[in-house]
Amino acid sequence: MKAVLIREFGGPEVLHIGEIETPVPGAGEVLVRVRATALNRADLLQRRGFYPPPKGASEILGLEMAGEVAQVGEGVTSVAVGDRVYALLPGGGYAQYVTVPAGMLMKLPDSLTFAQGAAIPEAFLTAYLNLFSLAKLAPGDTVLVHAGASGVGTSAIQLIRLAGATSIVTAGSSVKLERCLSLGASAGWDYHDGSFVPFVEEQTDGRGADIILDFIGASYFEDNIRALAVDGRLLLIGTMGGTEVQNVNLGTLLARRLQVIGTALRSRSLATKIELSQAFQTFAGDALARGEIAPVIDSVFDWREVQDAHRYMEENKNIGKIVLSIAD
Amino acid sequence: MKAVLIREFGGPEVLHIGEIETPVPGAGEVLVRVRATALNRADLLQRRGFYPPPKGASEILGLEMAGEVAQVGEGVTSVAVGDRVYALLPGGGYAQYVTVPAGMLMKLPDSLTFAQGAAIPEAFLTAYLNLFSLAKLAPGDTVLVHAGASGVGTSAIQLIRLAGATSIVTAGSSVKLERCLSLGASAGWDYHDGSFVPFVEEQTDGRGADIILDFIGASYFEDNIRALAVDGRLLLIGTMGGTEVQNVNLGTLLARRLQVIGTALRSRSLATKIELSQAFQTFAGDALARGEIAPVIDSVFDWREVQDAHRYMEENKNIGKIVLSIAD
Repeated sequence: MKAVLIREFGGPEVLHIGEIETPVPGAGEVLVRVRATALNRADLLQRRGFYPPPKGASEILGLEMAGEVAQVGEGVTSVAVGDRVYALLPGGGYAQYVTVPAGMLMKLPDSLTFAQGAAIPEAFLTAYLNLFSLAKLAPGDTVLVHAGASGVGTSAIQLIRLAGATSIVTAGSSVKLERCLSLGASAGWDYHDGSFVPFVEEQTDGRGADIILDFIGASYFEDNIRALAVDGRLLLIGTMGGTEVQNVNLGTLLARRLQVIGTALRSRSLATKIELSQAFQTFAGDALARGEIAPVIDSVFDWREVQDAHRYMEENKNIGKIVLSIAD
Repeated sequence: MKAVLIREFGGPEVLHIGEIETPVPGAGEVLVRVRATALNRADLLQRRGFYPPPKGASEILGLEMAGEVAQVGEGVTSVAVGDRVYALLPGGGYAQYVTVPAGMLMKLPDSLTFAQGAAIPEAFLTAYLNLFSLAKLAPGDTVLVHAGASGVGTSAIQLIRLAGATSIVTAGSSVKLERCLSLGASAGWDYHDGSFVPFVEEQTDGRGADIILDFIGASYFEDNIRALAVDGRLLLIGTMGGTEVQNVNLGTLLARRLQVIGTALRSRSLATKIELSQAFQTFAGDALARGEIAPVIDSVFDWREVQDAHRYMEENKNIGKIVLSIAD
């Protein structure tokens, strides 16, 4: 089969399409003909050699895909050849074929394109894991979503709306904030205008946010703690603003019963990812099929332009996912 | 009725038994004839004026009690006059009578004395809330319990055993450690012998503790983080070792998916406390009735010796609860 290979670790120019052996599905696995995959920041790191794939995972880039079932391994009854499916992957999405444990596959509704299916798993499952599995989002909660226009941010805004809760967001431009509001956010704050704490207080009548979804880390930590309501939960899913916090007052955590939750999706066990995929499909499958929620796609590149796609992501101007279409 | 009153904020000598109006149960409330109450550190602070009771709560000391139902308010059907009951209280336990919302009452098994019943609520419900409601203790987990010989610590050890999980403890003397082992702890560490981190590593084959129950706070924080397993949860329920932590690395929290949970029981809503009391009774009621788990009682004072009881607690030598018996 064809796959995007890495000549040697480096810039986008090291990526090229080459020939590699087609994987064979083992017992409980499914071979999928990949029709689309999507880019993640981890791909850029892995291309440069800074983010080795987990043990046992494919060396090929690509953490999510949508496609058609090409062959089922021994004991698989949940899907059949020809079914349209999409899934989270530990790697291997930038290829014509990938093998996936059957439990990881979600059915792709007919109303969604392969490009849309490929744009769902990382962003939506990360948002779902954080908001529901970890932070126990409840109707009526207010969630502060930092980087609201990011893939996870736009997914979170929609899942929060679907759950009957309220989202307020931060982002770095009025275009991005507008996009968040159109997806269901109640209010937005441009972080160039200063601390978000007064904004959160105003939006919650002084109560604070029940949940904060944060990619920034150290530089936001103190303000995040200040912006949390009693029983509030801070979800740390990135540290783009540094990792070292100088002063943490544990008394504040106790007095206001706050939770600080560090989390990641990729490093979790297969069993957890299967459970998560099934739970997400139960919660959001119908809403996706009806178009009530949808992945936000910035652009679709033919996979022969994978170098351009990586360059575009490095420019950091996209709102929503960058997808690779694998037509051939 | 008679109750322990505070002449003015100060030492144990300000406590005395005086006359005060008997409370009247409102709709949904129950009047209980108190037969025993137990001391908590919060009582000492409140006596000194440093820990005012929550809004609407009794000014009388006493956060837990056991007794007999004396009168039921309108609409109460869950208990009847004469029933033996015990409960957590927002205050008011150091008295002949107290009114309690019916949902807060737990049935006291015939096999338990009133002194035992009074010694259960604060310690066991705090341990239950932390281990089960917050940290989702699962069979096979290993829990590090700091201050293992404390009221919450001895309760936690027993609930962990009942759940089919493993506890390892720290304490400050070999007598205290022996007591913890006799209650079901697998291993103990005297904190005078240095950091507990190598001890935890050894006891968990290098994996770390799934849950840590900590009363100490700042001075243990760094070692607690080091001692946690992947997906580990640090429960902060006290800050006896200070509140200010320098240099927290959020990258560690993300990479190992750690949770830091600040928590307290007293400040929670009535609805939460009712839910907690009922869940605890479902989980542990039978085991308490059969004597498989039991509160650890250090000593029982007649309530006329309440000054001596407070002095004794201030000396910090007790292992287990100090109970006041209210016979008259």
